[in-house]
Amino acid sequence: MDQSIDEFSLISGYFKELTSQQDVVVGIGDDAAVIDTKKQHQIAVATDTLVASVHFPEDATAEQIATRALCVNLSDMAAMGAVPKWFTLALSIPKEMVSAKWLEGFSQGLAKVAEQYNVSLIGGDTTAGPLTISITLLGELPTGQRLCRDGAKQGDIIYVSGTLGDGAAALYELTHTDSTQNNRLLQRFYCPQPQIELGLGLRAYASACIDISDGLVADLGHLCKASSVAASINSQALPIQADIRQQYPEQSMQWALTGGDDYQLCFTVAKRHQAEFERWASLNKIAVTAIGNMTALDHNQDYLKIDDQKPSITVGGYTHFR
Amino acid sequence: MDQSIDEFSLISGYFKELTSQQDVVVGIGDDAAVIDTKKQHQIAVATDTLVASVHFPEDATAEQIATRALCVNLSDMAAMGAVPKWFTLALSIPKEMVSAKWLEGFSQGLAKVAEQYNVSLIGGDTTAGPLTISITLLGELPTGQRLCRDGAKQGDIIYVSGTLGDGAAALYELTHTDSTQNNRLLQRFYCPQPQIELGLGLRAYASACIDISDGLVADLGHLCKASSVAASINSQALPIQADIRQQYPEQSMQWALTGGDDYQLCFTVAKRHQAEFERWASLNKIAVTAIGNMTALDHNQDYLKIDDQKPSITVGGYTHFR
Repeated sequence: MDQSIDEFSLISGYFKELTSQQDVVVGIGDDAAVIDTKKQHQIAVATDTLVASVHFPEDATAEQIATRALCVNLSDMAAMGAVPKWFTLALSIPKEMVSAKWLEGFSQGLAKVAEQYNVSLIGGDTTAGPLTISITLLGELPTGQRLCRDGAKQGDIIYVSGTLGDGAAALYELTHTDSTQNNRLLQRFYCPQPQIELGLGLRAYASACIDISDGLVADLGHLCKASSVAASINSQALPIQADIRQQYPEQSMQWALTGGDDYQLCFTVAKRHQAEFERWASLNKIAVTAIGNMTALDHNQDYLKIDDQKPSITVGGYTHFR
Repeated sequence: MDQSIDEFSLISGYFKELTSQQDVVVGIGDDAAVIDTKKQHQIAVATDTLVASVHFPEDATAEQIATRALCVNLSDMAAMGAVPKWFTLALSIPKEMVSAKWLEGFSQGLAKVAEQYNVSLIGGDTTAGPLTISITLLGELPTGQRLCRDGAKQGDIIYVSGTLGDGAAALYELTHTDSTQNNRLLQRFYCPQPQIELGLGLRAYASACIDISDGLVADLGHLCKASSVAASINSQALPIQADIRQQYPEQSMQWALTGGDDYQLCFTVAKRHQAEFERWASLNKIAVTAIGNMTALDHNQDYLKIDDQKPSITVGGYTHFR
């Protein structure tokens, strides 16, 4: 092995402390990790990749990249109603970027999120190459209690968690202004809050669930298609933060509908569970907003109506950072 | 979403047919996959990344890249004694490379190996970016039966499977000659044969096991360190194919010792199990060769002796493809 490889072997030292959790039988340092799973549980598995200049700007700090990478994956677990437990990290990094400072920042970012959500790093691979972070997250689910996209029924109420459009507003500020003036938005971009607690609660209430990564219209569309029903939403009900409404009056509605990167949950609840669910959410201080209803799919297979109109949306949520 | 994203969503179509296997409760197409695990089994998890120009030449075909990526991961399962079952794929690919031909080739390469080893693709992520393939493989292990690196004892016999030095010879031909003349070597590089069957058998016989990815000296060194014992190997016993011995008389021994990329297993067996193990291997037509013994670790902490000498090896197995 040449110098560069020794250097890359050393990198694992920065991640060792992230591996402490129960149920990890073999952690980092063997050919594979070995984990113990609970009886009568199933395993949820999700993979997400972040590429420099595509999913985050070149000048993002190591810590920002790490927190975003792990949060985005955690959001998939929330959408399944799973308890996130373990993750592997595949990190490609250009040789010239490898420094103690960068690796410490990256490791600290991962550690912060891993601790908050009680997940352990159980393995991975570090290679020389263009900056790419790929995380595979494993979670546990009691058998049969998963939240899927395909269970929504006509008449169900459509909810979203938190506020919409923050991801797109942050993206706009990151790509159109010299520095992001709004700290809240920067946080929402680099540290989206995966709705794990909501996902666990929804096992008892929701008929279908998806996380909003590509924008409400796109992701609710996926849910409708999987469930073979249509959705009718009321644009005035969409939860949009006051700061965005004020600063971007022309764009905020579009961002909330199609912006992406929000990592909130969009889910459906049968009418008979509505009162009980809203009580549960209020008791647990989880912000949820009813934004419409599921309806029968018409013969045109129009999956979505916004304010009783077929949407004519200029879709433009996706921006590369170059 | 802009055109490029629609394009990338379509990519998943190429991988859908790879998902058929029992125990997959939710496959590709939801926020996460859900799998059913056997009672009294643990899950082994391994991640490996291949980067263009680092782990394979730029001109490798899509099928070659795919088969190598999956085989390299399967080798980690073999080294743990696990039954490989499920995998996720994180594929970054430059926009200009995306074509039906490339994706079909890649998907066919994956399908060939997936079918041979009975593993299912359960999810993943495709993004625009520099060509990088990261696979996370999950396997099942009866609780407590894993093969680890840390169980070798003084007096145990050291074995390797198959032949050594093929990976390094292939790498040499790929980087130093216009075309690889030796088809066997090309196969060994792009389709290393993960020793799954051997790994399963070794649950009953081996005290420690590792797969040879960085070269025998480096990987046996990891095993010694984890087990706190030393190894003494006999260089004349190393299994090297006749074609390499003849064509590269000066390099073949060095390649067998330090070459890397062989993806054979190196493992230790207590003397009392030797006869029974060799009978099992012979019965199952699995080529294994005893190459030395584990010895007590001396006060200098020299983990390895070759022909009773401390090795003074010019390590040079690792070559970037650029």
